[in-house]
Amino acid sequence: MTPMEQGLGKARVLVEALPYIQKFAGKTVVIKYGGHAMVDPVLKESVMLDILLLHSVGIRPVLVHGGGPEINSMLKKVGIESQFVQGLRVTDAQTMEIAQMVLLGKLNTEMVSLLNRFGGKSVGLSGKDANLLMAVKKPMQMPNSSGKMEDIDLGLVGQIQSVTPDILNTLLGQGYIPVISPVASGEAGETFNVNADTAAGKIAEALKADKLLLLTDVRGILREVSNTDSLISTISRGEVETLKAQGILSGGMLPKVECAISALDGGVGSVHILDGRLSHAILLELFTDGGIGTMFKGDA
Amino acid sequence: MTPMEQGLGKARVLVEALPYIQKFAGKTVVIKYGGHAMVDPVLKESVMLDILLLHSVGIRPVLVHGGGPEINSMLKKVGIESQFVQGLRVTDAQTMEIAQMVLLGKLNTEMVSLLNRFGGKSVGLSGKDANLLMAVKKPMQMPNSSGKMEDIDLGLVGQIQSVTPDILNTLLGQGYIPVISPVASGEAGETFNVNADTAAGKIAEALKADKLLLLTDVRGILREVSNTDSLISTISRGEVETLKAQGILSGGMLPKVECAISALDGGVGSVHILDGRLSHAILLELFTDGGIGTMFKGDA
Amino acid sequence: MTPMEQGLGKARVLVEALPYIQKFAGKTVVIKYGGHAMVDPVLKESVMLDILLLHSVGIRPVLVHGGGPEINSMLKKVGIESQFVQGLRVTDAQTMEIAQMVLLGKLNTEMVSLLNRFGGKSVGLSGKDANLLMAVKKPMQMPNSSGKMEDIDLGLVGQIQSVTPDILNTLLGQGYIPVISPVASGEAGETFNVNADTAAGKIAEALKADKLLLLTDVRGILREVSNTDSLISTISRGEVETLKAQGILSGGMLPKVECAISALDGGVGSVHILDGRLSHAILLELFTDGGIGTMFKGDA
Amino acid sequence: MTPMEQGLGKARVLVEALPYIQKFAGKTVVIKYGGHAMVDPVLKESVMLDILLLHSVGIRPVLVHGGGPEINSMLKKVGIESQFVQGLRVTDAQTMEIAQMVLLGKLNTEMVSLLNRFGGKSVGLSGKDANLLMAVKKPMQMPNSSGKMEDIDLGLVGQIQSVTPDILNTLLGQGYIPVISPVASGEAGETFNVNADTAAGKIAEALKADKLLLLTDVRGILREVSNTDSLISTISRGEVETLKAQGILSGGMLPKVECAISALDGGVGSVHILDGRLSHAILLELFTDGGIGTMFKGDA
Amino acid sequence: MTPMEQGLGKARVLVEALPYIQKFAGKTVVIKYGGHAMVDPVLKESVMLDILLLHSVGIRPVLVHGGGPEINSMLKKVGIESQFVQGLRVTDAQTMEIAQMVLLGKLNTEMVSLLNRFGGKSVGLSGKDANLLMAVKKPMQMPNSSGKMEDIDLGLVGQIQSVTPDILNTLLGQGYIPVISPVASGEAGETFNVNADTAAGKIAEALKADKLLLLTDVRGILREVSNTDSLISTISRGEVETLKAQGILSGGMLPKVECAISALDGGVGSVHILDGRLSHAILLELFTDGGIGTMFKGDA
Amino acid sequence: MTPMEQGLGKARVLVEALPYIQKFAGKTVVIKYGGHAMVDPVLKESVMLDILLLHSVGIRPVLVHGGGPEINSMLKKVGIESQFVQGLRVTDAQTMEIAQMVLLGKLNTEMVSLLNRFGGKSVGLSGKDANLLMAVKKPMQMPNSSGKMEDIDLGLVGQIQSVTPDILNTLLGQGYIPVISPVASGEAGETFNVNADTAAGKIAEALKADKLLLLTDVRGILREVSNTDSLISTISRGEVETLKAQGILSGGMLPKVECAISALDGGVGSVHILDGRLSHAILLELFTDGGIGTMFKGDA
Repeated sequence: MTPMEQGLGKARVLVEALPYIQKFAGKTVVIKYGGHAMVDPVLKESVMLDILLLHSVGIRPVLVHGGGPEINSMLKKVGIESQFVQGLRVTDAQTMEIAQMVLLGKLNTEMVSLLNRFGGKSVGLSGKDANLLMAVKKPMQMPNSSGKMEDIDLGLVGQIQSVTPDILNTLLGQGYIPVISPVASGEAGETFNVNADTAAGKIAEALKADKLLLLTDVRGILREVSNTDSLISTISRGEVETLKAQGILSGGMLPKVECAISALDGGVGSVHILDGRLSHAILLELFTDGGIGTMFKGDA
Repeated sequence: MTPMEQGLGKARVLVEALPYIQKFAGKTVVIKYGGHAMVDPVLKESVMLDILLLHSVGIRPVLVHGGGPEINSMLKKVGIESQFVQGLRVTDAQTMEIAQMVLLGKLNTEMVSLLNRFGGKSVGLSGKDANLLMAVKKPMQMPNSSGKMEDIDLGLVGQIQSVTPDILNTLLGQGYIPVISPVASGEAGETFNVNADTAAGKIAEALKADKLLLLTDVRGILREVSNTDSLISTISRGEVETLKAQGILSGGMLPKVECAISALDGGVGSVHILDGRLSHAILLELFTDGGIGTMFKGDA
Repeated sequence: MTPMEQGLGKARVLVEALPYIQKFAGKTVVIKYGGHAMVDPVLKESVMLDILLLHSVGIRPVLVHGGGPEINSMLKKVGIESQFVQGLRVTDAQTMEIAQMVLLGKLNTEMVSLLNRFGGKSVGLSGKDANLLMAVKKPMQMPNSSGKMEDIDLGLVGQIQSVTPDILNTLLGQGYIPVISPVASGEAGETFNVNADTAAGKIAEALKADKLLLLTDVRGILREVSNTDSLISTISRGEVETLKAQGILSGGMLPKVECAISALDGGVGSVHILDGRLSHAILLELFTDGGIGTMFKGDA
Repeated sequence: MTPMEQGLGKARVLVEALPYIQKFAGKTVVIKYGGHAMVDPVLKESVMLDILLLHSVGIRPVLVHGGGPEINSMLKKVGIESQFVQGLRVTDAQTMEIAQMVLLGKLNTEMVSLLNRFGGKSVGLSGKDANLLMAVKKPMQMPNSSGKMEDIDLGLVGQIQSVTPDILNTLLGQGYIPVISPVASGEAGETFNVNADTAAGKIAEALKADKLLLLTDVRGILREVSNTDSLISTISRGEVETLKAQGILSGGMLPKVECAISALDGGVGSVHILDGRLSHAILLELFTDGGIGTMFKGDA
Repeated sequence: MTPMEQGLGKARVLVEALPYIQKFAGKTVVIKYGGHAMVDPVLKESVMLDILLLHSVGIRPVLVHGGGPEINSMLKKVGIESQFVQGLRVTDAQTMEIAQMVLLGKLNTEMVSLLNRFGGKSVGLSGKDANLLMAVKKPMQMPNSSGKMEDIDLGLVGQIQSVTPDILNTLLGQGYIPVISPVASGEAGETFNVNADTAAGKIAEALKADKLLLLTDVRGILREVSNTDSLISTISRGEVETLKAQGILSGGMLPKVECAISALDGGVGSVHILDGRLSHAILLELFTDGGIGTMFKGDA
Repeated sequence: MTPMEQGLGKARVLVEALPYIQKFAGKTVVIKYGGHAMVDPVLKESVMLDILLLHSVGIRPVLVHGGGPEINSMLKKVGIESQFVQGLRVTDAQTMEIAQMVLLGKLNTEMVSLLNRFGGKSVGLSGKDANLLMAVKKPMQMPNSSGKMEDIDLGLVGQIQSVTPDILNTLLGQGYIPVISPVASGEAGETFNVNADTAAGKIAEALKADKLLLLTDVRGILREVSNTDSLISTISRGEVETLKAQGILSGGMLPKVECAISALDGGVGSVHILDGRLSHAILLELFTDGGIGTMFKGDA
């Protein structure tokens, strides 16, 4: 191919994207970023470029990130060991301090740096900034040895009570891309660790976002677990119960599915479960006809 | 290629365009549209899609169109014959009426239709709307049989005196794409035909546009006339006189070159002479490194 | 009279107009302009001056024009003959092209020129600009020779489906006077001819206009057809059915009356049927107590 | 004349006013109101109607009033006698209190009432509101019996030091008509009586007004004092010295002329000395070709 | 105490006020000012300083003043005697003129002066400005000698019909402190005297104010009339009827109580009856925990 | 004292603060917070309350913090040892990562929490957010063993090249209090440690701040080092050189003085060196006559 032909090919790709660009212009898209895509530097760059492209065609992206492995590694470095209850880390003050330092002082600021280096205007936030996320202690119960339910103290694990999205609207209105760490404030000023998927969902609701994208380490919802060709592209709100009854929405995907349902019911237009291990997963989902993951669609 | 691979390829193209998109976001680009690109329906569509893509990535495009062949054909249909003096049509009131009907009532509205059908918000204007273009009768002299210079009356051929770009700023500020016919008002309310290149240049100046693109039926400025490989990609304002002296800027290109120089001197950032016969010429010029035509660049 | 006395007389007239000016300040008035007033150059000027005066005292006028005779004359010039079905011209593509050229490229731009020459800031639009008017093919049926109803194909005669008044609000908000040609877009980008009265009425509804003025070639609604002294000045929405039953609203006036009723029901404050053959008919209607035509008044 | 003919005559007067209306739209006009026009109830109403008409055609009028006779009558009622030095009332605290009550609590509020009753939105102010007018004690000297110059204490007679027009811009921007009493604040909070002509001039300067109108009890500047046919319609800034030298600008008119010159030099476009004893003097001056008084015009 | 210790003490007081400042920031507070606080110059200054402090911490204060004693003294000076019917002054035109001069031309402007001298930006208004207060004649009936009810003509005593708060919103939005005299316009342009408490209440309603403060010459509502220790700090809307039944809300306080109830029912957040004879009564009420007067609190 | 007397005393303190509040309303004040005041929890709270009080009276505070001791303690915890060259820590990537985690993920967010808990709306930023601070590697030279100057590599110690204050203006305009960590971005996306005093100074310049407050662990500039009674309250820009020559501006204070001079020369109104060990040092400096530290004042 001559350079002219190559150029022409590229121009055609751009023009083919036009209907998608026009369709999403001005929309708010909240992206939960975590898992493998946050560890692999090539994927990390690919995610940031996707977000900048969305922004450059008039979409208002908001990034909410997770951070498990890095927190573990830092806790180890300073010699703190954690206990887990049903997969949740019991979080004492020391642990919370380390978690917050890693989330906000390392991961968040790294993403902000990347976005800005590639020409964006990004601002990092924690849920404590401008009281964005207010939380209370997450209640938990477990049967004790004699089978009676007992309260379990998870420490500073929080459950989001309210979202004040003013700061996000201010930043989005000025063209900034907000990057948010999943940390929340309690009434008494304490710091709570909150689940990043849930935080992204609640923020999407508060912003009346059009889309919530959850980057995961799976292909999406599969009709048959071990067959990636059995990916379900679209699930309407109304089909959820049936699919649950069929055992298709189950196991490890259930928390993500619950998050998706809650967001839809809270007014978000659609929720997408994507495979963050794929390059440019976000663009592929938004800018191709079928998309590459599973979209949960509100009934309205 | 699997659909996934194809998608990935397209995503990469989009991401490669990011630096160009970021560079031009918010800029005003005036496009003179005429010649072959206005006759061939495939090219016409390609130009409109290019403009819509520019718009969708945050550029503010303004379209100024010509219209020669269609006017001729309509004049013929109604039985009006024209005289030409040095390539300029002597324009009596009847001719002007037909010209205006074709320009505004046919060509302009066709482009507006196309842009709107492809998802844009476009508004057609003539230079008479909101006093956008004010003109006076273009003065002309020619030697008579005894060699003495004599005034020639070209009728309603106008020379632009002033541009009032308020209406364009209003429309651009609300996301509309203006399409402008090269017709101007005289002080006494008369209608003047004005040169479309000049109109585009003056409008670009008045808007303090970043770029003026002139779509032509040639490849650009060639160092050797018959060798399209000898295309000069960039000419700085300072080099113009040398190139003129070398005879490289000459002949049929001279009016376009004069228009370019005048726009640069009036504050336009760069002026591009493009080959409108190429598909997606506008995108190729703006969104590839070398571009495909000749860019005249201001010295500042 | 001394010049001082003359001046004083004029000052008194201005001051007498004050209550009307105060009453209408800030109101939107849509004016359908057609018939004799569009043919006679003295009346044309009188209409334009009336509109400019309205504008200068704080009213927001919108002009919608018709154009029958000029279209006919141009069709004749280029040798196109038209068929009519129940008074509607069967409009093929060629006819539509000529109609559009005359409406937009001649009549509309002439009014814009006049308004601007007298000190206004006017902008011409067709219904295709900014998707102002969207239409579908007008359905029609007629009995065939055997008396059975059959679909009649009127070609590009359109029926308005929706009005997007954003461009009008943008222009009015900046002090421009919009002049609109009765041409609309179809979904597939085709061009439809639409009835100018209906267009004016739909636009008045979409703008939540206070008044719709229909300039006609009759005095208004007469109680006795041949007695101009029997003019009815005001008809409330509630009286319409009675007057229809009495045969007073009938015949050639019926389409205008239907247009008026539809606009009232769509929220326009009042609809006025005026005699456009009278000088300054618009000012006389708005700025004198009784007015000179017939006002249909909403019940609310 | 039939009512229709009468109506038509009135419509023509309105349309004739159009060029003046267009010329003055958006301009700020400060009007000093005093003398006979403030005493005669018919003239008072005529002035208020003129001001409302100006306002209704887009002019921004500001009214500054005087109040001599009413203050005298109130002082008499409460038994205060005044001393005068060179025509200036020596103003002790008691006198100032009465003057202020009459100006602000009676005259100002009466005008506001009239303007509002005729459909305007007017707000009364004194120069003390929002620190509009700040003044210092007016210095004065007179020769004593032995011919030596001595300071004379005029009491609370003030000389304007600064104008803070913010409150006027706020009110004008919202469509209110400000009516201002000539009272100013001193640094220490004291109240000063200031000359109404001077106050109007200084306010016109601070507002960068286009026109200052001084309503007086004379015809304007006459070339021959006793010949009202010798009225000079226009005096340019450059002619002033010559006319002074000729004794034409002299005597009782001199303070008004000085006020006019000072305002012109401060940037006001033109200053008009009008005969307030004539009905509708303001409209006659602004809306007829020659005007009825004398206009001082800046050279720029 | 060293100066440093003194400073520290003061800093602590400021910091202690922080929660109150934060609580009231942006709120609108209407203050009825009258009685002893308007006569004593020290108290007058204290009230003005309190208002300026409120303003400086982000509260939007509006001042409505009364003026009894000063009006009486001026009426006496000019020899007008008044009749009273059930405590209301029969107000003829002459009396109204004097009242208005005193209220607007003396008292109002004095407060404006004080506020401005202490660094504020204040503007004086009467209810006639911008049609702020429209009133009708207050109806009254009394039994005549034979016990039959008869209409009593109170002259220009008015009853407020409507409040147009636009001018207040304009001024508050620009940081001005409005000071309002209790004078209203009638439909026919006449001037009515209105009760200042009622005026303050109606204005508070129209502004949707958070608080209405009534400065009086009593301590507030006392459970036992002669025991100032029996002050009731808070009365909820629901308790009012009970307290009336107990005779606690009775006598001279009843009009104030009715005013408070009416304001609460009209949407004002709380109404406070304060002792204006105490220095800094306003600050003490708003910025201390218990307050110093009686607060009537809406139920919502 | 009775509670009433106490209340009155407090009210008087508030009113005494009025002139200071009025003087500083709307001004921007940048505060460098570090040293002892950042370690002692009581002082920390006192600083935050001072800042909230400033904010509540209309001042726009910006907080820039340091963080030495906490970084050291964390470096120790993870076993990283630092080298120092002329008091500057040689900062490798690992050290920078820890420093950034402590600054942004611990100290900054703690202050944000405190401010928000006390009723503020605060947002934490690093200099990398929105490209607020861009830096280059700080050049350094030292004589080597043979006395020749040699470049010293300090690692990621940065020198500020440019400040983009847009994000601060956005946040301040919406009532947020920004808290900034002294970390900057390099062109290539690297992270630089920058001096907090310098960062505060450069930010103050970029914001055209009225005041820069440097909280230190000394009383201010003393004429005699060991005599705290010899504090110099005000130093004008012009006096600086003399005081340097006298040896009064020297030693440990020199860097702060240089920072002050640079800010003054960059357009900041005044720079204050305060003793952060004193409770409410900020209020004492701004809201008492003499202040408690040393103010450097620009000459303009």
